[in-house]
Amino acid sequence: MPKAPIRVAVSGAAGKIAYNLLYRIASGEMLGKDQPVILQLLELPEMLPATKGVMMELEDCAYPSLAGMFMSADPNEGFKDAEICILLGSRPRGAGMDRASLLTVNGEIFAVHGKSIAESANPDVKVLVVGNPCNTNAYIARNAAKKVGRINAANIHSMLRLDYNRSLWQLSAKTGRPIESFRKLVVWGNHSDTMYSDYRHCESNGDAVEKLIGDASWKFDYFVPTIAKRGSVIIDARGGLSSAASAANAALNHVRDWVIGRDDWVTMGVPSDGSYGIEEGFIFGFPCECKNGNYKIVQGVEIDEFSRAKLDTSLNELRKEAATVKHLL
Amino acid sequence: MPKAPIRVAVSGAAGKIAYNLLYRIASGEMLGKDQPVILQLLELPEMLPATKGVMMELEDCAYPSLAGMFMSADPNEGFKDAEICILLGSRPRGAGMDRASLLTVNGEIFAVHGKSIAESANPDVKVLVVGNPCNTNAYIARNAAKKVGRINAANIHSMLRLDYNRSLWQLSAKTGRPIESFRKLVVWGNHSDTMYSDYRHCESNGDAVEKLIGDASWKFDYFVPTIAKRGSVIIDARGGLSSAASAANAALNHVRDWVIGRDDWVTMGVPSDGSYGIEEGFIFGFPCECKNGNYKIVQGVEIDEFSRAKLDTSLNELRKEAATVKHLL
Repeated sequence: MPKAPIRVAVSGAAGKIAYNLLYRIASGEMLGKDQPVILQLLELPEMLPATKGVMMELEDCAYPSLAGMFMSADPNEGFKDAEICILLGSRPRGAGMDRASLLTVNGEIFAVHGKSIAESANPDVKVLVVGNPCNTNAYIARNAAKKVGRINAANIHSMLRLDYNRSLWQLSAKTGRPIESFRKLVVWGNHSDTMYSDYRHCESNGDAVEKLIGDASWKFDYFVPTIAKRGSVIIDARGGLSSAASAANAALNHVRDWVIGRDDWVTMGVPSDGSYGIEEGFIFGFPCECKNGNYKIVQGVEIDEFSRAKLDTSLNELRKEAATVKHLL
Repeated sequence: MPKAPIRVAVSGAAGKIAYNLLYRIASGEMLGKDQPVILQLLELPEMLPATKGVMMELEDCAYPSLAGMFMSADPNEGFKDAEICILLGSRPRGAGMDRASLLTVNGEIFAVHGKSIAESANPDVKVLVVGNPCNTNAYIARNAAKKVGRINAANIHSMLRLDYNRSLWQLSAKTGRPIESFRKLVVWGNHSDTMYSDYRHCESNGDAVEKLIGDASWKFDYFVPTIAKRGSVIIDARGGLSSAASAANAALNHVRDWVIGRDDWVTMGVPSDGSYGIEEGFIFGFPCECKNGNYKIVQGVEIDEFSRAKLDTSLNELRKEAATVKHLL
């Protein structure tokens, strides 16, 4: 008896991240080779012809696990009955656009999408916001969804997985230990320069990673700035193209772990329940445990003085972003 | 005991097909999640900075199965000890460039790559040529490799898998049968307008596909022209961008089936051994069976008068292409 298909809605479906992500979802890499998926592709009206091209290519991959697909420029149609929504569509910062304007134009998109998801998606929908500034976009979407009710607003996440994966690789390269040996890495906060990649509790095959690294200055002089600047270094190397493939991979990892589970802490941007002194409702990177399709924030991680300051800095940034878009809340 | 890594060399590593393919190879989708790979990325010297960006993103995916990687602009270094070479790098047709010029500029690339692979790759290397015109590029590479010896020149393939996958989807859409139900589809010939997608022997769950379709005119009026024109229809829809994601997927399928095996006929562009009246040495789409890392051309497929004419047309095209590049052979 084949499994019932899962509806996966993706906004920004003709964009660069989608061009890497959709083919991997349809191949079964996100939810399993034996799990049929129906792709619901949301785009702006003027992008529908290009979206049609993306759909033709999905057809031409002859994926057994792709049970159906359609495109739409209407959010209520695009999100209809979706169990998973991955929100890639956002405006990039244009020339001369300040951060407040960027927050506002994107906030308008996510206010609409949050409302539509709450109105039309499956009540158990899981939502991942990738479009930047993703934490505040998720915050806006969550506020809009809460006004409608119907869905679980705790299931609106933002993506810190790319920062988490970037951190894993740097730790592996530094220590010579394999990627899969690391456990208990955390990336706290906002997906921005203020995020705090924290390997104080991280282990590799039972060894404390801090001890393996030894040199404490490496964290401040190399690791933290490298993770923070990685996106712009890649844009420079790729001649202006952003890190679409690794962002797509991170989105796939986030959803996969959330749905399938993972025997480790994994960092997700989730609505705070007040844990670690983070004001309730802000979408913040926390260590999470995923099991049976649910996640919970790991409790009891020691927060030292340095870490407290980092978390507060990131929280303050989120407060400021929220203040900028408060007309949308 | 973990498996020894397999070295996979990819040319055109900073190009659009590679940007979809490399992440899927590194994730384990081509050779298996438990099979470590080392990626050897070949590019033109001026593309090495962009290739570095691609490598940083591969790092940032934190793939457990990516055991190592490097980039090079030197073919002998890029192909060194490779067990699999996927040749994506070719020149697209420029404005005002005729087909003969296109054949020549690409032929020069593949003469160099064929020679380098024969000199430096693993003697059991499997080579897939994706860069177009892929059959004649593979023919040139094979001739160059044969002069060196050392590798098995029967293992230089061209890619007809995208045409094959496109055909599978069209048959599935027409009959309402699932993709995975189809068996014994063949795409004969050159990867060009002259290729012949042939479902005369194709079955779906034991039913003859020709009978399921009924209307014989569908093949000529819709199916054959749709497959032949699919690439350009997608370029139009995507505003000038070619079908990179589905080409990457097809390359992955080709290599995967060749290495892992497949319990069905699968179409590969392989050097003819004289089967079906195709002159020995030309790289031609044939039905193949793959087992234990080896392939063989399926024998005994009935060739009726219509099919004979189609095969001969495609062969004649390959003869003409070979004549155009005979100074490179």
